[in-house]
Amino acid sequence: MITKEDIRAAAQRIAPYIRTTPVIELEAGWFDVPGDTFLKLESLQVTGSFKPRGAFNRLLSEPLPPAGVIAASGGNHGIAVAYAARKLGVPVEIYVPSLATALKRKMLTDLGAKVVVAGNTYVEALAASEARAAETGALNIHAFDHAATVAGQGTIAIELEAQLPDIDTVLVAVGGGGFIGGIAAWFSGKAKIVAVEPTQCPTLNRALLARAPVDVETGGIGADSLGCKRIGDVPFSVLRSAVSDSVLVSDDQIRDAQRMLWDKLRIASEPGGATAFAALLSGAYVPTAREKVAVVICGGNVDPAVFA
Amino acid sequence: MITKEDIRAAAQRIAPYIRTTPVIELEAGWFDVPGDTFLKLESLQVTGSFKPRGAFNRLLSEPLPPAGVIAASGGNHGIAVAYAARKLGVPVEIYVPSLATALKRKMLTDLGAKVVVAGNTYVEALAASEARAAETGALNIHAFDHAATVAGQGTIAIELEAQLPDIDTVLVAVGGGGFIGGIAAWFSGKAKIVAVEPTQCPTLNRALLARAPVDVETGGIGADSLGCKRIGDVPFSVLRSAVSDSVLVSDDQIRDAQRMLWDKLRIASEPGGATAFAALLSGAYVPTAREKVAVVICGGNVDPAVFA
Repeated sequence: MITKEDIRAAAQRIAPYIRTTPVIELEAGWFDVPGDTFLKLESLQVTGSFKPRGAFNRLLSEPLPPAGVIAASGGNHGIAVAYAARKLGVPVEIYVPSLATALKRKMLTDLGAKVVVAGNTYVEALAASEARAAETGALNIHAFDHAATVAGQGTIAIELEAQLPDIDTVLVAVGGGGFIGGIAAWFSGKAKIVAVEPTQCPTLNRALLARAPVDVETGGIGADSLGCKRIGDVPFSVLRSAVSDSVLVSDDQIRDAQRMLWDKLRIASEPGGATAFAALLSGAYVPTAREKVAVVICGGNVDPAVFA
Repeated sequence: MITKEDIRAAAQRIAPYIRTTPVIELEAGWFDVPGDTFLKLESLQVTGSFKPRGAFNRLLSEPLPPAGVIAASGGNHGIAVAYAARKLGVPVEIYVPSLATALKRKMLTDLGAKVVVAGNTYVEALAASEARAAETGALNIHAFDHAATVAGQGTIAIELEAQLPDIDTVLVAVGGGGFIGGIAAWFSGKAKIVAVEPTQCPTLNRALLARAPVDVETGGIGADSLGCKRIGDVPFSVLRSAVSDSVLVSDDQIRDAQRMLWDKLRIASEPGGATAFAALLSGAYVPTAREKVAVVICGGNVDPAVFA
């Protein structure tokens, strides 16, 4: 179980390395959705996603072996681990599946990480990274299924609560569940948590239906950041009871949200970063007239050619 | 003269229409510049620039004729006037010089404004708009040289002071002087105001040297938003004594700043929007080790192809 105390301790631990990300309010009538909408621009976090919150907390929570750390990742998690390792002076290797975007691979190389392309999916890259860790003695930093990672991701909720003390609802995209798990652990009983997933990556949605983590097939435009075969056990221990709503959005709806964030707000979001907003724009989640809704824009690592 | 009371009144008047824009702090050592750097992301303002602050204040400050309003603009001012007029239900025509970017012309059309391309420069478009206003009786909304406009632009300073109460220095790009004039009127005696201009648009720089508004030639990549032949008389009445430093940056330095804002922060800025940041990155302005510096990113209306 992740407690509020765990999240508070994480926030203190990672504070020197993490940016407090801004919130903007969308003026009434800006788009045709009831309620008051606030965007939490976590895409402006260091490395362009929320992932360094969890990565720093994990790396700062236990002694690290001389061989350093290793991670498997389609992108943002690997970038965050590489960034944190560099800041903390720790050796690092990142195993990426072939679906990682060219942009994210370049960001990894620019951070000085050793990058190994292993397999076509996150699961294959993870297996390869585990074999490598067994060989070198490096600590494998899982992308989501670890208490320190979930508590680190949850630190965004402390910021959000300070910025919007009377928020009713938080819309969050879900991959392996680490981010929403941390947020739900903080807001549990205080704000409604709405989980949003691409229809082609319904990892939490299926787990909630089955009342247990189950394997799913993943694909589509959100797969490089949200495509996760099975929800994490650690986050699911929170999510099984803390999620109010689980909704799905199509790839077209995600593209529309991405495009609107750019065209109307000049906010760069990757598909996974725009997924929560897509739920609001598409009507997959409909707030009441006076509901105060925070939408987390959780990643901005996108090739700008998408908007051109 | 523009007083703090004028700016406070403007803030109250425009509040229903304007977004409070966020500030982010750049972590120490993020780039090789002394002091603490904060970015005020005015590029996330409605319409993508600071201009609606002044436009709304002007349109809400006096009775408007039945023919509505007219404006000459290379882009952001016109977009802001068109946006404000639409929100307030007022007819609007915008005269643009041929140097207006395709993106900005499209934004104007999308807002439902009547767009007239008139001449190659702002000065020619302004003359054409004045002739048209004489014909129709529409009120000509000058881009910068009016007290209500300057007071409206100054409202950003109220926000900035609330967000960063102990700021030492504010770096602002200059076109006709309305924006920096409003900011300087608020911060006068409290924070250092540094004016930044492209070397090819040294409108305020030359006026300060001459101790009076003088005509200058303008060109280069910042010209569509900052290219102004002569500093406004109304803003210059503030600026002649309230600007601490006037620095110039090259087009290459502006491009570097634009690219770094995108690559490292996923912030979309147009050349004029990145100009103030260019002064910091290039060393045209060098803060002391403990100086708290706010850099205003004043416009984000850029074709993303620039970053691809």
